[in-house]
Amino acid sequence: MINLKGDERLDYLLAGDLRIIQSPSVFSFSLDAVLLAKFAYVPIQKGNIIDLCSGNGVIPLFLSTRTKGKIIGVEIQERLYDMAVRSIQYNGLENRIQMVHGDIKEMPKQLGYGRFEVVTCNPPYFKTPPEGEINPNEHLAIARHEILCTLEDVIKVSSDLVKQGGKVALVHRPGRLMDIVTLMRQYRLEPKRIQFIYPKQGKEANTLLIEAIKDGSPDLKILPPLVVYHDNNEYTKEIRAILYGES
Amino acid sequence: MINLKGDERLDYLLAGDLRIIQSPSVFSFSLDAVLLAKFAYVPIQKGNIIDLCSGNGVIPLFLSTRTKGKIIGVEIQERLYDMAVRSIQYNGLENRIQMVHGDIKEMPKQLGYGRFEVVTCNPPYFKTPPEGEINPNEHLAIARHEILCTLEDVIKVSSDLVKQGGKVALVHRPGRLMDIVTLMRQYRLEPKRIQFIYPKQGKEANTLLIEAIKDGSPDLKILPPLVVYHDNNEYTKEIRAILYGES
Repeated sequence: MINLKGDERLDYLLAGDLRIIQSPSVFSFSLDAVLLAKFAYVPIQKGNIIDLCSGNGVIPLFLSTRTKGKIIGVEIQERLYDMAVRSIQYNGLENRIQMVHGDIKEMPKQLGYGRFEVVTCNPPYFKTPPEGEINPNEHLAIARHEILCTLEDVIKVSSDLVKQGGKVALVHRPGRLMDIVTLMRQYRLEPKRIQFIYPKQGKEANTLLIEAIKDGSPDLKILPPLVVYHDNNEYTKEIRAILYGES
Repeated sequence: MINLKGDERLDYLLAGDLRIIQSPSVFSFSLDAVLLAKFAYVPIQKGNIIDLCSGNGVIPLFLSTRTKGKIIGVEIQERLYDMAVRSIQYNGLENRIQMVHGDIKEMPKQLGYGRFEVVTCNPPYFKTPPEGEINPNEHLAIARHEILCTLEDVIKVSSDLVKQGGKVALVHRPGRLMDIVTLMRQYRLEPKRIQFIYPKQGKEANTLLIEAIKDGSPDLKILPPLVVYHDNNEYTKEIRAILYGES
């Protein structure tokens, strides 16, 4: 039924509603991706949605539980693209999720300008370090560092792909908030909702979720804070609800 | 000992360490001002600090408990300036806090460019509404609306007054965050610390504290969230600690 390669496993997503192929040495999805997939606005009945830097397809898979629209995932690494395709097949979602193997910078020309209601992206977080400090595992390095696409690429391409009044949702690090909002305004994306994620009560935020509207009017909301762990390192109720659908 | 005018009262600040003249019909300080006075970095032993849009002087009074530096407060409304001067005299702080009656836009020329280690400001929050919708109480209207100074005035003047490497701290509404950070970068102020204030658990933020450094390097931290009220409308422990010095 499924062809697992190397150290791949078939993990559960959302308490068993979905399965996803992961690999410790190649790519495993992060909590950040799941938080973004939960945070992003999606039309319920129909529409075109695109996820950039999809990795093993975790965001398209998760979004398929929230929308009946068509979802495209774009991934530049063939190994990860292949994992995503097999996961989509395993879950029988081929008619709702389509993976594209390619560079996000080519997508507006390839797929169409202003064609999407929603763009999501969990991009590489870190500026490219000096050669010697890059992770020698190329798969992990490309997923984590701005080697093949910069933050500006992500925001420019998102703006090109989304239609006027459509939404672009990203997850990133708070240290880059200034760069993100400056670039968003530069590419006609007006930030409308931000949520900060705190690892524990009383700690600084380590993640941010941000949603912008193409050519939207300025009116920013800061959503309630989300705390990931209790002091005893167990997930909080909010996070369990998002990860496992517990209420 | 003290000359109270009209409906003025002599209120306690910080559980009785200080007293402050207030008036319901003219000006009463807000929690926001106290949060800013607690949030702002101040040098402990010496230095020059300036507070813009000082109202009845609540921020200079509060800051005097955290620094031995010289504090200047600037207020354009003579009635409020006069309240601040009498409160400073009552507390015997004339040699540490000096009030200036004037327009903040004149202060760089009047007091000196790049002269201050720290600038604080709790500015008017709201864009000036159409004539008919302005509060008919002129004192309250000027304190709340951008009638005599805009957000851009506040940020430009703050940047002119602060020295390189010095800090500018503001309190404002989250809906204006995009305007604030855009203007700050325009005037060479790099945001370094932001804290969001939430009225209750699970609600959107209604206040933000932001501190920038003149010509600072980009590296923004989002401090732990601060929640003001419990569900039963009592202040949380954190807020009581700030308002009354309780621990």
